[in-house]
Amino acid sequence: MSARETQHSTVAADIWLLEEDRATPFPDTLATEAPLEIRLRIEPAGEAPMVHPLAVTMRTPGADAELALGFLYSEGVLENRTDVVAIDHPRPPGPRIARQGGSGIVELTLRPGLVPPLEGLERHFYTTSACGLCGKASLEALLMRRAPRLPTGPRIEPSVLYRLPEVLRGAQGLFQSTGGLHAAALFTHNGELLAAREDVGRHNALDKLIGWALDEGLLPLHEHLILVSGRTSYELVQKALLAEVPVLAAVSAPSSLAVATAREHGMTLVGFLREQRLNVYSGGERLGLEG
Amino acid sequence: MSARETQHSTVAADIWLLEEDRATPFPDTLATEAPLEIRLRIEPAGEAPMVHPLAVTMRTPGADAELALGFLYSEGVLENRTDVVAIDHPRPPGPRIARQGGSGIVELTLRPGLVPPLEGLERHFYTTSACGLCGKASLEALLMRRAPRLPTGPRIEPSVLYRLPEVLRGAQGLFQSTGGLHAAALFTHNGELLAAREDVGRHNALDKLIGWALDEGLLPLHEHLILVSGRTSYELVQKALLAEVPVLAAVSAPSSLAVATAREHGMTLVGFLREQRLNVYSGGERLGLEG
Repeated sequence: MSARETQHSTVAADIWLLEEDRATPFPDTLATEAPLEIRLRIEPAGEAPMVHPLAVTMRTPGADAELALGFLYSEGVLENRTDVVAIDHPRPPGPRIARQGGSGIVELTLRPGLVPPLEGLERHFYTTSACGLCGKASLEALLMRRAPRLPTGPRIEPSVLYRLPEVLRGAQGLFQSTGGLHAAALFTHNGELLAAREDVGRHNALDKLIGWALDEGLLPLHEHLILVSGRTSYELVQKALLAEVPVLAAVSAPSSLAVATAREHGMTLVGFLREQRLNVYSGGERLGLEG
Repeated sequence: MSARETQHSTVAADIWLLEEDRATPFPDTLATEAPLEIRLRIEPAGEAPMVHPLAVTMRTPGADAELALGFLYSEGVLENRTDVVAIDHPRPPGPRIARQGGSGIVELTLRPGLVPPLEGLERHFYTTSACGLCGKASLEALLMRRAPRLPTGPRIEPSVLYRLPEVLRGAQGLFQSTGGLHAAALFTHNGELLAAREDVGRHNALDKLIGWALDEGLLPLHEHLILVSGRTSYELVQKALLAEVPVLAAVSAPSSLAVATAREHGMTLVGFLREQRLNVYSGGERLGLEG
C-alpha cells in the first residue's frame, strides 16, 4: 500500500481469509480512500489573484475534477460550467500526507471578477462538519441559495425503473472487485444509462455524477433519472434537487427528512428498488399513481 | 410527518408499494433524520461563562447526550467523563427549523477552568466538512492530539466473531422496522453484548456507542470488540483507535486508508464478517494468525 498505488481507484492488499477454522492467505483488492483538497483560485476585478483552500474530502481517486465541479455546484458556488476557466492539479506538499495514504489537490480557477461569498461558504462548510452531517445553516440556507424548479414530468413506466439496478451493477466495475463502493448513475427517462460514478462516500459519487453532467452541459436534468446504490439521506436529496432531477431512486431506504424534502419540492423518491418491486415515497404522479 | 413525530427514532409515512404493475398503499416506517446542534458551555477561570456552538449533525434522535459525548471524545475535546459537569437540552429557537424536520440542541458544560482550543477545533471541523469526509488537518493532527496505545491482546477465537452479526441483528430494533440505519455494538472479548446504538449516519452510531462507554467509565476499551454494520472508513478506524479498542469488525468492506491506519497502529481489522467466514486485514495475531 505505497503512496504510488493510492492515486488509483483500487489498492492490492494481502489479507487472511478465515472459513470456520481454516485460514488462507488471500490477495484482496480494496477501494482507495485518500484526501482531496479543493481550492478556488479567484481573480477579483483589479486585484491580484488569490488561492482559497475550501474543503478537504476523503474520496476515491479517478474523477477529481468532476467531484470538485459537482461539489461546488451543489454548494451554490457555481451556476454554470463557464464560471470555471481552468482546472489544475498542483503537486501535493511534503511527504507527510502522502505517507498517510495519498493526497491530491484540485484547483478551480473562477472566471475573472467572479467572487463567491467565501465567509458564508466557510460558515456553511463549518456547519456541515464531520460525516453524514449537514448543518443548520445548510438546512436553512441551501434551498434559498438557488430555488429548484422541477418539471411536472416526465412520465415514467415502472418497468423502466425495475431494470435500473441491473444496469448499474453491470457498470459498477470497482464494486465488483472491492465490495466497498457507493455508486450513482444518470439515466434518461427511458432508462438509457448515460454515466455511472463510484466512491467510498455516497455523497462523492453523486457529486462526481453531477459534476460530469455540468461538464457535459446537461444541467438542469429535467428529463433524467438518478439511481443511487444505498440509502437516501437529506443531503443526497438536496444535491439531486439542485441539479433539478425529477426522479431519484435508491436500492435501499430513505430517511424521514429525505422523504419530507422530496415531498416539499415535488420530487419523485423511490426506494428499495429491486427486480419487479419498489416503494414510492413521494411524487407518485410521475409513475401514474394518485398523490 | 409532523414536527412532534420527528423527535422520535422513527416516523410513520403513507407510501405506495409497486409490485410488477400492481400498486398498493402501504403504511411504512422511516428512520428519523433530524439536526442536532452541539454546544459547549465554557467557564474560563475568573471570566463569565460563554456558550460556543460547535457543530450541527444530522442524526437519529434518541441518544443525543451520548452522541455529543462520543463526538467530543473522538475530537479530543474531552479526556474524561468528569470534564463535563452538566448536559442540558435547551429549547430550539423559532419555528423554521422544526418545520424542516425537527431540531435539537445539546449543551455540554465543561468543568470550570477547562478551555479547549476552540480556534483549532473550528479549523478541524471546517476541514472535515461535508459527508464521508475528513480533513487534512484531521489526517495530520488527530492522532497527535492523543496517541492511542492498543494492548497486545486480547486473544480472540474466530468462533466468537462469527456469532456477533446475529447478536447485533437481534439487538437492532430500528433496522428491523426501517431498513435504514447503521449500527455499532460493543462486546466483551468473549462476545457478550454490552450495548448497541443505531443512526442514519454510521459515524453517529459509533459516536453514540463510545459516548455510552465514556459515560459508563469503560474507556479505554482494551478488553473489548466493536462491530459496525456496514463498511469501514478511515474515520471509523480513527474513532475506534481513540477509544483504544483493539478489535474492529465490520459486516462489509474496509477502505484502503482504513486498512493502512489499522496496520500502522496494530489494530485488528476484520471485514465481511458472516456466519463461519471473515476477512482479516490487520492485526491477525489476536486471532492466532502470523503477521
